[in-house]
Amino acid sequence: MYELYYWPTIQGRGEFVRLALEEAAAPYRDVARESGRGAGVASLLHFLQGRATEQPPFAPPFLRAGRLIVGQTANILQFLGSRHALAPNSESGRLWTHELQLTIADLVAEVHDTHHPIAVSQYYEDQKKEARRKAADFLKNRMPKYLGYFEKILGSKRSGDRYLLGAKLTYADLSLFQIVAGLTYAFPNTMERAARKYRHIFALHARIQQRPRIAAYLKSPRRIPFNEDGIFRHYPELENTSRVK
Amino acid sequence: MYELYYWPTIQGRGEFVRLALEEAAAPYRDVARESGRGAGVASLLHFLQGRATEQPPFAPPFLRAGRLIVGQTANILQFLGSRHALAPNSESGRLWTHELQLTIADLVAEVHDTHHPIAVSQYYEDQKKEARRKAADFLKNRMPKYLGYFEKILGSKRSGDRYLLGAKLTYADLSLFQIVAGLTYAFPNTMERAARKYRHIFALHARIQQRPRIAAYLKSPRRIPFNEDGIFRHYPELENTSRVK
Repeated sequence: MYELYYWPTIQGRGEFVRLALEEAAAPYRDVARESGRGAGVASLLHFLQGRATEQPPFAPPFLRAGRLIVGQTANILQFLGSRHALAPNSESGRLWTHELQLTIADLVAEVHDTHHPIAVSQYYEDQKKEARRKAADFLKNRMPKYLGYFEKILGSKRSGDRYLLGAKLTYADLSLFQIVAGLTYAFPNTMERAARKYRHIFALHARIQQRPRIAAYLKSPRRIPFNEDGIFRHYPELENTSRVK
Repeated sequence: MYELYYWPTIQGRGEFVRLALEEAAAPYRDVARESGRGAGVASLLHFLQGRATEQPPFAPPFLRAGRLIVGQTANILQFLGSRHALAPNSESGRLWTHELQLTIADLVAEVHDTHHPIAVSQYYEDQKKEARRKAADFLKNRMPKYLGYFEKILGSKRSGDRYLLGAKLTYADLSLFQIVAGLTYAFPNTMERAARKYRHIFALHARIQQRPRIAAYLKSPRRIPFNEDGIFRHYPELENTSRVK
């Protein structure tokens, strides 16, 4: 039984781990969402403050697997990937999957910064003007660069290859699914136009959404709805930035 | 013989890879810094544009090892770590080293954003005001959080343990050395004060600086000096932000 530790009210970075656990049908507790002794946010803070382990994570999410505590989203996914066949066994395949995941992690950080370009510790309202400039650049330059990259990789496959690595699903595919879901929530108009341009990425998203375990998960209460406390936030003013210089 | 591909005029993220290669005494070419056929920036762009491989890196640095091309700094280090004994062999040790490295990668991204909070594609001069706010938050909140984290890990060791993982050097130590070197270049006054607070981190920096291969490397022309095109930039106005709200 795995124990996932992540903030209880948002999808955030924890969601990339949840999707891998759900697809693997791996039993896990979402500890900070439970109540009672040894659960809740207190249990998460207990680890962060370094009182429970000599290897304290810097930030959530982190995963407990027996005596092992694994932090950093991409690192957790690499760990789960090898345990649950969500990545190839070969060294080259493992490295390539992880490389793709780390590029997705960079994209996630840039998405976060569209609403918090100045300081995570300050309110969105106090950096709204800067956020409009940041989001405009993200939508115009950065998002197309990232999506174009993944579209090209998916487009270069032989017919029949349906995933980033080829015929077999990896954790990087699950993360790319979440990217499309999140960007569609945050920037619906932009993504409606993008669907025509990034056909392979959107097809991958649709395909993963229909996988039985993912479909069941998305309908379950375990999937927290997107909201304005997470990484992907829907602030309409950030999408309508065409008149902002 | 490894081939490293990175922008030829800056330390940047490539420097974390160079330090690992140098400490391992691994033969490598710094391809984009060479001239002639199959070298220079053109050779780097050749890979980025996806014409040389089905697994194109998203951005430099990337490392070629025979038929393998490995991208994303932390991924390259993980690869070199296992090949050159710059990480433990055990699963738990490997995961913990990589977790530390990914936290360092997050810190590097935040350092970069102190001078480019709005857009990488725009000049520093066009986001200077925002950079002052960003840098003020970085120096007040973020840098202490990161350095405090690593200081605590180093401080919790048994006496005799000199590195992040204990008695043996890993690639994460080399990267933490580079963090101290870079922050000292970018924010000299802040780091002079920080030296009294983060004694273990600064001692680690001094210790690594004296390792024979690192010392030889730092004196060689292979070490590009810090400059204002890289990640760590010395803009005095970003350090003296106490009057900026």
